Amino acid sequence: MKQHSAMLTVSTKGPGLVDITHEAERFVAQSGIGEGLLTVFIRHTSASLLVQENADPDVLTDLENFMRRAVARDTRLYRHTTEGPDDMPAHIRSALTQTSLSIPVQSGRMVLGTWQAIYVFEHRDRGHNREIALHAIGI
Amino acid sequence: MKQHSAMLTVSTKGPGLVDITHEAERFVAQSGIGEGLLTVFIRHTSASLLVQENADPDVLTDLENFMRRAVARDTRLYRHTTEGPDDMPAHIRSALTQTSLSIPVQSGRMVLGTWQAIYVFEHRDRGHNREIALHAIGI
Amino acid sequence: MKQHSAMLTVSTKGPGLVDITHEAERFVAQSGIGEGLLTVFIRHTSASLLVQENADPDVLTDLENFMRRAVARDTRLYRHTTEGPDDMPAHIRSALTQTSLSIPVQSGRMVLGTWQAIYVFEHRDRGHNREIALHAIGI
Repeated sequence: MKQHSAMLTVSTKGPGLVDITHEAERFVAQSGIGEGLLTVFIRHTSASLLVQENADPDVLTDLENFMRRAVARDTRLYRHTTEGPDDMPAHIRSALTQTSLSIPVQSGRMVLGTWQAIYVFEHRDRGHNREIALHAIGI
Repeated sequence: MKQHSAMLTVSTKGPGLVDITHEAERFVAQSGIGEGLLTVFIRHTSASLLVQENADPDVLTDLENFMRRAVARDTRLYRHTTEGPDDMPAHIRSALTQTSLSIPVQSGRMVLGTWQAIYVFEHRDRGHNREIALHAIGI
Repeated sequence: MKQHSAMLTVSTKGPGLVDITHEAERFVAQSGIGEGLLTVFIRHTSASLLVQENADPDVLTDLENFMRRAVARDTRLYRHTTEGPDDMPAHIRSALTQTSLSIPVQSGRMVLGTWQAIYVFEHRDRGHNREIALHAIGI
């Protein structure tokens, strides 16, 4: 049994999803693990993780637009407003999605479905450098 | 330390939750692992996973109805409409629930609470065969 | 490779978030694991887990208030009402957040970001004793 760990920095460009599937694939390949478990963890609370469709970019636009409708920007609704009108909505959007993902590895590859990709979901208006911790364990 | 992996196919019958707790229990028993970690991963983006109440089936109906209210079917809200009016809402409902679950194993059993079951949450109108990857690691 | 498991009981005082980061840190330290994976699992379906901001307590108030707006208390919306008007909303709020969290461990510490804490999110009106299963694996 062996482990492999790494820290990945992902640059975002404001609200929306950034595909990190290739980076995760590369990490699993580097780990030399054939059967095991990959964990992806984002070290932030105003950006999150999501496994979502990889084919039609309209899905990503619709996801971002849904989040804008579901989590209002109206600062009168929030106490935490000192970091800007987009900050508290970003925390809520993160709470509604994922901070960690666990993906089994088989034959040296993540068992993602044909239409699945791994995304960092940026919820702040400005782009950020987001740190993602990767961990693999297995044989 | 040992591992056990399997792929499970779950047939759904349209929107709602399908209990897979027994299948997960059987997998853990087959693994021969007494202390360890179970990971459940769904290979789709229009169906998801959830740990929820196992006692009153009304809870499952109410969950499905809440999702219908919270994620509108109105195609004017979405760009991604080519796969039908239920497809983009299904992606959003998946994003709001889980793609992976991690459940510790103790004394050869998942540490689920008395009232907890593991469900596949189908979000499309038609039934589908959904693939679930199972992975266990431990002693 | 080694493992460490424990059950933690967390007393809540009604709706809102209880910080369990110190308890998780202590568990990881006790495990003696330097590089590995921590799993946190809550054994309930009307309370959940969340990684969120640790600095401004207003963020926690705003999260609780968002959940109250997003998940209506109106019993006419639900079939499952026998356990009180707060019970079905609690199940939904749990479904929208997390039952399990996976956090890599590096140099004997969780790789949490500077502003991240681990919370139990109580969704019922009354306080409860909530059971949290902890599991660590690694070297």
